[in-house]
Amino acid sequence: MSRETPKIPNATISRLVTYLRILESLEERGVNRTSSEQLAEEAQVTAFQVRKDLAYFGSYGTRGVGYTVQVLKRELRQILGLNRKWGLCIVGMGRLGQALADYPGFGETFELRAFFDVDPEKVGQRIRGIEVQHLNDLARTVAERHIEVGLVTVPAEAAQTVADQLVEAGVRGILNFAPVVLEVPKEVAVEYVDFLAGLSRLSFFILNPKWREEMMG
Amino acid sequence: MSRETPKIPNATISRLVTYLRILESLEERGVNRTSSEQLAEEAQVTAFQVRKDLAYFGSYGTRGVGYTVQVLKRELRQILGLNRKWGLCIVGMGRLGQALADYPGFGETFELRAFFDVDPEKVGQRIRGIEVQHLNDLARTVAERHIEVGLVTVPAEAAQTVADQLVEAGVRGILNFAPVVLEVPKEVAVEYVDFLAGLSRLSFFILNPKWREEMMG
Repeated sequence: MSRETPKIPNATISRLVTYLRILESLEERGVNRTSSEQLAEEAQVTAFQVRKDLAYFGSYGTRGVGYTVQVLKRELRQILGLNRKWGLCIVGMGRLGQALADYPGFGETFELRAFFDVDPEKVGQRIRGIEVQHLNDLARTVAERHIEVGLVTVPAEAAQTVADQLVEAGVRGILNFAPVVLEVPKEVAVEYVDFLAGLSRLSFFILNPKWREEMMG
Repeated sequence: MSRETPKIPNATISRLVTYLRILESLEERGVNRTSSEQLAEEAQVTAFQVRKDLAYFGSYGTRGVGYTVQVLKRELRQILGLNRKWGLCIVGMGRLGQALADYPGFGETFELRAFFDVDPEKVGQRIRGIEVQHLNDLARTVAERHIEVGLVTVPAEAAQTVADQLVEAGVRGILNFAPVVLEVPKEVAVEYVDFLAGLSRLSFFILNPKWREEMMG
């Protein structure tokens, strides 16, 4: 690994997403300018943290003047790679998979291109105009429809097998909703959507409000 | 804020949850002993990070001997406040709310005690033996059933109003699935389950594999 590569904390990337969400909300409310202080308050971090997070990627904003909402939003979308289209598939069309398929907020960036299941009652159904396919068709469909990211919404015990199949099929990233840690080759990125982890963090922060304040301070 | 309070990074709490999950998996596989190296490998962080994270909360394990899986698991559950019961409600019984209500993995710690919606077709339905109530009943039911945490699965535009009602009703924490930043008094904890944020992080890490390695290294 090169010494010049800055060591960017994982948490910074999460916060960039939060700042982006705040900027989108400001834009919707017709706000044109913002400051690290405003972003910090809404993101519940310090203004120093905001400036430090942004500084990893270059110099944004003008001292004493702050940021143009639209410009910073565009920059953050570019940093995060959201100024392109990503082809997605969902594996596991139970209630959670269906809830995701119905989700209206994918926007222009994330495009659902295929759904997979092994249940004969689900295979062949159409959701959003896309036919649910059998998992056996995964490799072919991932290649044909240029799918780069797989959302895994199968039960925990099936998640690793599905992940292996997605990797084999050539996806570059997996968003895992099953409550298991997945093993994938290091060239494949994995993110976890884990609401039990969220509940566990809540439990900690409810019982340790002082630490919560410290982290924000 | 007192100077003696250690400043524990938010990411540490997330990693503790990951370590706990790994320990549970090791225990299931009949493994009795582990090491910071093994935990690190499975959590995709460094062994130094594992030891540092645990050191915030005291001294665990013996140099050269490692950790007893069962003991460390119990300690982590205690640190996170998972050695007690938390009463939960879900507000918003659409597909996502129903998928959560069906989720088999809440365990002994998290207990679903009430479901709320405003849709007359949903109010009165029974899920897991619990009747879906109108949101108007929130305050009374939260008090009667000792509900401390609310899961918000309503559309984005309704989420802040629901959060206000949950806070007013006296919950201590909110797990928000709606893609908006919630404003709550500082004594209430909020965690976000945000799969679009997960997708955005994936997007970044797919496009910046080198940074991903750096963060792990």
